[in-house]
Amino acid sequence: MPKPNPRHPNYPIPGGPELRAKGWRQEGLLRLLENVLSVGEDPDNLVVYAALGKAARNWASHRAIVKALTGMDEDQTLLIQSGKPVGLLKTHAKAPLVIMANCNIVGQWAKAEVFYELQRKGLICWGGLTAGAWQYIGSQGVIQGTYEIFMRIAEKRFGGSLAGRFILTAGLGGMGGAQPLAGRMAGAAILCVDIDPERAAKRRAAGYLEQVAPDLDTALAMIDEAVKDKRATSIGLVGNAAEVYPEIARRGIVPDIVTDQTSAHDLVYGYVPKGMSLDQVKGLRDDGQGQLMAASRASIVEHVSAMLEFQKRGAEVFDNGNLIRTQAREGGIANAFDIPIFTEAYLRPLFARAIGPFRWMALSGEESDIARIDDLVLEMFPDNRIVTNWIRLARENIPFEGLPARIAWLGHGERTALALAVNKLVAAGELKGPIAFSRDHLDAGAMAHPNIMTERMKDGSDAIADWPLLDAMLLSSSMADLVVVHSGGGGYAGYMTSCGVTLIADGTPAAAERLEHALTNDTALGVIRYADAGYEESFEEIEAKGIGYVPV
Amino acid sequence: MPKPNPRHPNYPIPGGPELRAKGWRQEGLLRLLENVLSVGEDPDNLVVYAALGKAARNWASHRAIVKALTGMDEDQTLLIQSGKPVGLLKTHAKAPLVIMANCNIVGQWAKAEVFYELQRKGLICWGGLTAGAWQYIGSQGVIQGTYEIFMRIAEKRFGGSLAGRFILTAGLGGMGGAQPLAGRMAGAAILCVDIDPERAAKRRAAGYLEQVAPDLDTALAMIDEAVKDKRATSIGLVGNAAEVYPEIARRGIVPDIVTDQTSAHDLVYGYVPKGMSLDQVKGLRDDGQGQLMAASRASIVEHVSAMLEFQKRGAEVFDNGNLIRTQAREGGIANAFDIPIFTEAYLRPLFARAIGPFRWMALSGEESDIARIDDLVLEMFPDNRIVTNWIRLARENIPFEGLPARIAWLGHGERTALALAVNKLVAAGELKGPIAFSRDHLDAGAMAHPNIMTERMKDGSDAIADWPLLDAMLLSSSMADLVVVHSGGGGYAGYMTSCGVTLIADGTPAAAERLEHALTNDTALGVIRYADAGYEESFEEIEAKGIGYVPV
Ligand SMILES: NC(=O)c1ccc[n+]([C@@H]2O[C@H](COP(=O)([O-])OP(=O)(O)OC[C@H]3O[C@@H](n4cnc5c(N)ncnc54)[C@H](O)[C@@H]3O)[C@@H](O)[C@H]2O)c1
Ligand SMILES: NC(=O)c1ccc[n+]([C@@H]2O[C@H](COP(=O)([O-])OP(=O)(O)OC[C@H]3O[C@@H](n4cnc5c(N)ncnc54)[C@H](O)[C@@H]3O)[C@@H](O)[C@H]2O)c1
Repeated sequence: MPKPNPRHPNYPIPGGPELRAKGWRQEGLLRLLENVLSVGEDPDNLVVYAALGKAARNWASHRAIVKALTGMDEDQTLLIQSGKPVGLLKTHAKAPLVIMANCNIVGQWAKAEVFYELQRKGLICWGGLTAGAWQYIGSQGVIQGTYEIFMRIAEKRFGGSLAGRFILTAGLGGMGGAQPLAGRMAGAAILCVDIDPERAAKRRAAGYLEQVAPDLDTALAMIDEAVKDKRATSIGLVGNAAEVYPEIARRGIVPDIVTDQTSAHDLVYGYVPKGMSLDQVKGLRDDGQGQLMAASRASIVEHVSAMLEFQKRGAEVFDNGNLIRTQAREGGIANAFDIPIFTEAYLRPLFARAIGPFRWMALSGEESDIARIDDLVLEMFPDNRIVTNWIRLARENIPFEGLPARIAWLGHGERTALALAVNKLVAAGELKGPIAFSRDHLDAGAMAHPNIMTERMKDGSDAIADWPLLDAMLLSSSMADLVVVHSGGGGYAGYMTSCGVTLIADGTPAAAERLEHALTNDTALGVIRYADAGYEESFEEIEAKGIGYVPV
Repeated sequence: MPKPNPRHPNYPIPGGPELRAKGWRQEGLLRLLENVLSVGEDPDNLVVYAALGKAARNWASHRAIVKALTGMDEDQTLLIQSGKPVGLLKTHAKAPLVIMANCNIVGQWAKAEVFYELQRKGLICWGGLTAGAWQYIGSQGVIQGTYEIFMRIAEKRFGGSLAGRFILTAGLGGMGGAQPLAGRMAGAAILCVDIDPERAAKRRAAGYLEQVAPDLDTALAMIDEAVKDKRATSIGLVGNAAEVYPEIARRGIVPDIVTDQTSAHDLVYGYVPKGMSLDQVKGLRDDGQGQLMAASRASIVEHVSAMLEFQKRGAEVFDNGNLIRTQAREGGIANAFDIPIFTEAYLRPLFARAIGPFRWMALSGEESDIARIDDLVLEMFPDNRIVTNWIRLARENIPFEGLPARIAWLGHGERTALALAVNKLVAAGELKGPIAFSRDHLDAGAMAHPNIMTERMKDGSDAIADWPLLDAMLLSSSMADLVVVHSGGGGYAGYMTSCGVTLIADGTPAAAERLEHALTNDTALGVIRYADAGYEESFEEIEAKGIGYVPV
């Protein structure tokens, strides 16, 4: 039985033992689709996060998807093209139930303007990374990513701890909203600027943000006090980052860490230029796109100039994957890329071992299922410091949104082992229902993004998109339940291609076979991708775990 | 036992009953790899056709591929990234043996310069459409395509016959070399200009070209005579099209049909600028790329200006898929796209029913196998005028190159039925060995190419690349033996994405299952792609054949 969803009353949170589809594989995917809307930013418009990231092309498409999932057999495959179901074909029981290709545009046409035009014509929609793939699990999805970045910085610069350190950031949206919680969990005093008072209020209500300061002076005083006391805290401030960052710099204050997670990737539907109200921006989105793009870019120039100034004065400044450097460079800031990307600066050694954000969702809707798996993870990986630390922190600090879920950075073999153990728990009746497994698209073999994931690869292979496509074909050949290829939309158009995967552990031996093949091959490809680029860690992993790499 | 290959003695033509791999599926793919080199343009450099289209990244990669194919089991999958094998992973018996992603580059980076740089670093290679996919069968592969275009023009403009008509074209390379034979088969007098005397000689030796004229005057006189006699003929002329076309125009001569198949898509490795010798061009390819690109573009401007002039004077002028209009437009010819693309002008009604170039190859190496299948096709499709006409013409006119092979334009259901019937012949011992099936990448659901395949689609979806990616995932889920995603390289970089598929009919029930699933789903997706774009023919096909289209 679905549970009430106070945030979006019309989008109850799925759950319970009743099946509406012909099996748990189909029912599981249906619940994941329902879930991304129940935790999404604007479900009435099918928007899940990142301004334009949608779960389906339109409501007619959504209805047809639900109908197909409900009625389809195990040996059929549903084809979805940019959020619209287009075919339901006979395949076989080891084939995916759903394959999707979302927002892929031929290279020379892969530009924001072409995307908007195709979107206007109703021919395409952007799926973000996890929205169109029905894998989004609310802000919790990125918390560990952000937390691990902060911890890597703590190790690199601050003797392992962020106590008494000041983090400045902006953006409290679907993804950015994870920042205050991650910062506080890492022990820091974090200030988060957002132009939209509703976003700040929402994060506060969800327990992600402790306080909202009435103005900059108060905010800085609160931070100052927490820093002196070495007390972890998270403070929100309503304002435009393009004004607030330069003003802080002007006052001679230098935060220890500076980043940003406004929707800078999208100059029309995302970033809000300084001096404009939200309503003014909305009014221009249809007819004043050119004006809006110019104004956004001009503001981003000031925003990034302040970030570079902080960097010059000694702050640890990084880009958290929102394309803000690219936008600034196009606006004339030649040295915008002096700011490093988080992947290359902090996470590459993990990705080289295919360690990345793996996640699981309790299709029963019961939090106890996640608690039981938390215990299992602690039992299974006692020596994995990153994961045990994270699970302990997460179970105390992270409020559930939608279907109870957990995310943890696990690598080759670990993911497979955990999923198989969970499948056994389902079979033994120790959980209230099946568990769905997926991972972020930002994963070792899964993403080509020369300004985020694959920036400055050792061999210069940044722009090669063969890997996510191999991943998609490989997963389709390895019994995954859902496989998807996403490329960038809006301002991300032409900047990335990625592959996503979902599996349903329903406790059957068939599910065990699927989990084993799909998860093992997915991470094997991740390790191989980095080995091919020359990373030492990957060769160690290949050696240690017997991965089927072909040396040439 | 392999057969001698007079053209490339070091690359014998595979054949015979002996297996070197663990089964016919693996052996068949290995023979196809050998075959593309044995019929290729420059096998020592692994180049199959179109200047840079390669069978493998380099010789070390080639050796590793051969070793993997020879040793692998039926439940393994070999992963190939831009011509280099990177992984050999455990999948299952219904998964493809080989999956490939070749030359895919993230959109904003998908440009000729980036491609060349990645190629220089040894990180990528271009697979053409069928070179990297081991599907190329020599010039015969495109003959029917070119022939059908001429016949559609005959119907549209010349009362159904090209007798007494003059076709002017250029390019006698791997693909373009099919033009003189296709033109003669269509009944016309065709003049083919190529800058390279060796190419002309090679086509003549292969029986594709009847005569090579010593100079333009003689060539035009020969054409004139044939036109008067309404006699089909093919004449070669060594010269630069950028000089010859304008000169013919200057003389006030207007051919009936004008096209071009020089490698205009590649300004460095393909097109030869006027006034330069082949040796001069080769000397500039490494160090004078900029100079070469500028000179090629300038020549293309003159070349296309002459084509536009012919069009103005009443000739049927079309682009045959070599990007020459795009190059000319970038060189300043604003109205280059007044010249229509062949797909939209002549073939779209066929593609809307997923009728496209299907092909089969006799892995035994025996021509009698193809003859037997020719008979079968005539028996099975007596009412299909295009196919019966073609098979009769082909068996008389088309010399085999490499593995004996045939191509014929067949649609949904037809391909599956033929493949299943052939598989029965193999099982019954009526053929000397298994048959491999593939199709061109230029196929209904398989290609997004806004300047060739999907130019001016009814709904404006030209640039959407979701379809070939769906096709690749679908084929990986439908028991195909080899699945590949190719994007453009060289001057095609950023202009296209396509999907290829190969199946081996070894006479087993498992092969029948594979053929049935993969071929049926592949053409189903083709019909669905055109239905989604609003083509009436596709809806008729869906209705008549019960295709699993999901209406939204
Ligand atoms: N680590 C990664 O690679 C990763 C993962 C997910 C998302 N992202 C990117 O991070 C960005 C944020 O994602 P999201 O889902 O939170 O987007 P969102 O649209 O839900 O939220 C963006 C927030 O930024 C605020 N904002 C816009 N302009 C502002 C300005 N000038 N000053 C202050 N606030 C402003 C908006 O009010 C909104 O709350 C996007 O670019 C997204 O694509 C990166
Ligand atoms: N119908 C299609 O969509 C389709 C199918 C296959 C190939 N193509 C395209 O057709 C073109 C030809 O393919 P190919 O495999 O024959 O290439 P190729 O490189 O093997 O042959 C090109 C030929 O053009 C000649 N040439 C170059 N510049 C010339 C000039 N200025 N004047 C006269 N001759 C010149 C070369 O000497 C060579 O013989 C390519 O652009 C290819 O990509 C299109």
